[in-house]
Amino acid sequence: MRHDVKFSLSIDDIPKRWYNIAADSPVPLPPPHNPATNEPMDPKALEAIFPRNLIEQEISQERYIDIPEEVRDAYVMLNRPSPLVRAVRLEKALKTPAKIYYKREDLSPCGSHKPNTAVPQAYYNMKAGTEHITTETGAGQWGMALSLACSMFDMSCKVFMTCSSYDSKPYRRIAMETYGAKVYSSPSGETKYGREIKAKFPDTPGSLGIAISEAIEAAVTDPTGKTRYSLGSVLNHVLLHQTIIGLEAKKQMQMAGEKLPDVIIGCAGGGSNFAGLAFPYTTDKINGANIEIIPVEPAACPTMTRAPFSYDHGDTAGMTPLLAMHSLGHAFVPPPIHAGGLRYHGMAPLVCQCIVEGLFTPRAYPQSKCYESALTWAKTEGTICAPETSHAIADS
Amino acid sequence: MRHDVKFSLSIDDIPKRWYNIAADSPVPLPPPHNPATNEPMDPKALEAIFPRNLIEQEISQERYIDIPEEVRDAYVMLNRPSPLVRAVRLEKALKTPAKIYYKREDLSPCGSHKPNTAVPQAYYNMKAGTEHITTETGAGQWGMALSLACSMFDMSCKVFMTCSSYDSKPYRRIAMETYGAKVYSSPSGETKYGREIKAKFPDTPGSLGIAISEAIEAAVTDPTGKTRYSLGSVLNHVLLHQTIIGLEAKKQMQMAGEKLPDVIIGCAGGGSNFAGLAFPYTTDKINGANIEIIPVEPAACPTMTRAPFSYDHGDTAGMTPLLAMHSLGHAFVPPPIHAGGLRYHGMAPLVCQCIVEGLFTPRAYPQSKCYESALTWAKTEGTICAPETSHAIADS
Repeated sequence: MRHDVKFSLSIDDIPKRWYNIAADSPVPLPPPHNPATNEPMDPKALEAIFPRNLIEQEISQERYIDIPEEVRDAYVMLNRPSPLVRAVRLEKALKTPAKIYYKREDLSPCGSHKPNTAVPQAYYNMKAGTEHITTETGAGQWGMALSLACSMFDMSCKVFMTCSSYDSKPYRRIAMETYGAKVYSSPSGETKYGREIKAKFPDTPGSLGIAISEAIEAAVTDPTGKTRYSLGSVLNHVLLHQTIIGLEAKKQMQMAGEKLPDVIIGCAGGGSNFAGLAFPYTTDKINGANIEIIPVEPAACPTMTRAPFSYDHGDTAGMTPLLAMHSLGHAFVPPPIHAGGLRYHGMAPLVCQCIVEGLFTPRAYPQSKCYESALTWAKTEGTICAPETSHAIADS
Repeated sequence: MRHDVKFSLSIDDIPKRWYNIAADSPVPLPPPHNPATNEPMDPKALEAIFPRNLIEQEISQERYIDIPEEVRDAYVMLNRPSPLVRAVRLEKALKTPAKIYYKREDLSPCGSHKPNTAVPQAYYNMKAGTEHITTETGAGQWGMALSLACSMFDMSCKVFMTCSSYDSKPYRRIAMETYGAKVYSSPSGETKYGREIKAKFPDTPGSLGIAISEAIEAAVTDPTGKTRYSLGSVLNHVLLHQTIIGLEAKKQMQMAGEKLPDVIIGCAGGGSNFAGLAFPYTTDKINGANIEIIPVEPAACPTMTRAPFSYDHGDTAGMTPLLAMHSLGHAFVPPPIHAGGLRYHGMAPLVCQCIVEGLFTPRAYPQSKCYESALTWAKTEGTICAPETSHAIADS
């Protein structure tokens, strides 16, 4: 039988440390700015939003950060390590001489890579004494992952879901409720900001930016001080946790007898799944390896390919620090394309920094082309991929 | 980290042979009867419906049947071998001293065990010169699996889907179409029998029995003779293919340091996923091992727990051979419960034979109890299971 198609690791091969690209970036990341003063901000100011242990990861310059034993055990429950698979049937259909490998992050209980960071975020929050977590979600994958992670560590979870996805994907809401979360259609009546937006724009399809503002407001206004906010992408510590993907992939590519890939492709909404795969290889590129690294986004929300690089808020209300990133503007509301997870006005600062340094070459595709690729993928590789993922396939 | 939670095999551990319980049954299976004469029938009479190589498997008395190399390679693409997982968090929630293990058949591209037999059935049909396959589906899992398998071996596929599921699960229809199949709401206008039923019972929720009649009619009336019918459960060769589950599980239980399980539980609609897990252990029970083996069904369709054991048709129109099985009567139309895959009037003859011989002790549960168990399962083990699967969990 063929031994060149699927590469599986044992649970002992689950990496013991995450990789922090901040240690290797040729240029240091511009610091977050205070949203009120536009001056570099003290990380302590973030403590109303995030627990201190995660803030430490957010600003860490250490190259490797240990993964707690409890988190590695939880990764097993999330079905890690995930297989690396060679797309032999797709290669044949495309008549390409290229070898195409893909990482099966869809095999987690929630069907996405999101639990890779939801679980450590819930774990560190639990350690820091947090009892309730609030968050936003687009298509619902992040909300599902955090809902599950909170149930694992006995915390309650409130999710603000962009209303276009809330309406089009009711089963995702039900899934979050199954894990014990409370889910609100955003903009909601639960927050001051949500009520304002609803009054001003009654027909808005919602956006991740709006939902983030609501979730932060819900966290910081809790009088008990036991509520923190959790973000599913964009921030440094989120991308850090996702490097588990690329670290595993590197071991598996070695099993496959490959040295380094020529091209790395991933879809990018806030940037975390893409960075998770790409960062452990980006260090090779920084050190001279010839690798083309391509984040793919929807033409309907062209953050990396069309938006300026500047300081902007991560949310719509302007509650988050100002981050140095490509941004379509924090008030930008993308059209309600199916790839709800790619409807974000900004992009992870660490990803943007790599774009600025010429390490990544982003591309954008229209929805219809992505869907055509997804059909070819389903007929060859057998899985029906997410709308988000189809953006990466369109580039293959 | 914990090494007693997840047990994975390498691809070389994928069994090389399926296990055929017919070789070990203390009493031979009563032969199928001709639907017209109620006399034992010549297997040759089945050749209008099934290819000869699958009929040979259907009547084989060999204990082991070799799995073709192409099918083992395809099993890798279906993400086999599937992990065996210990439900440590569920055990804790139930405060049970029992160790509970489960097999992750949900990790296939279609999300169920169905591809385990869809792929070999498509393979053997391709080998026999079949160009088109027809089938029925309830909740859609079988239809998805066969649609994918047909796309893998370049055959066309027509699926008759019970109308209650067709209406309540549109995404399953779309998934089958994504793999290239044609899907009809059954009873349909495509067949003489479907038109008759529609005229007589315009408000019927449909049934697997009706859909099977339609699919067989569509196969046998093809004037080119290149169409065959494929069944997703019930028949001997289908259960044979599913023994891949139990054969893998046996190796994994050894890895876990367990000798034999005390109890085996599976949900049973037509009986194939249950038999796939149970049969490789049933031989141990025949040889004296003390194992309780429990197939679980819905109280709304109590075939094993309430129906008589007699010769009956596998379909509603009476086109299939008469099979010796527990049957609620081939005209029985179960209520439209969510577990569409368990809405079948009959049960696999091989499973029924084991019940008659006292090897299995079936149970039935109402939908609401099953759903409660599914919620506990989601919060502990992290996956949101199928309505069908929740019947097995309800018994844990």
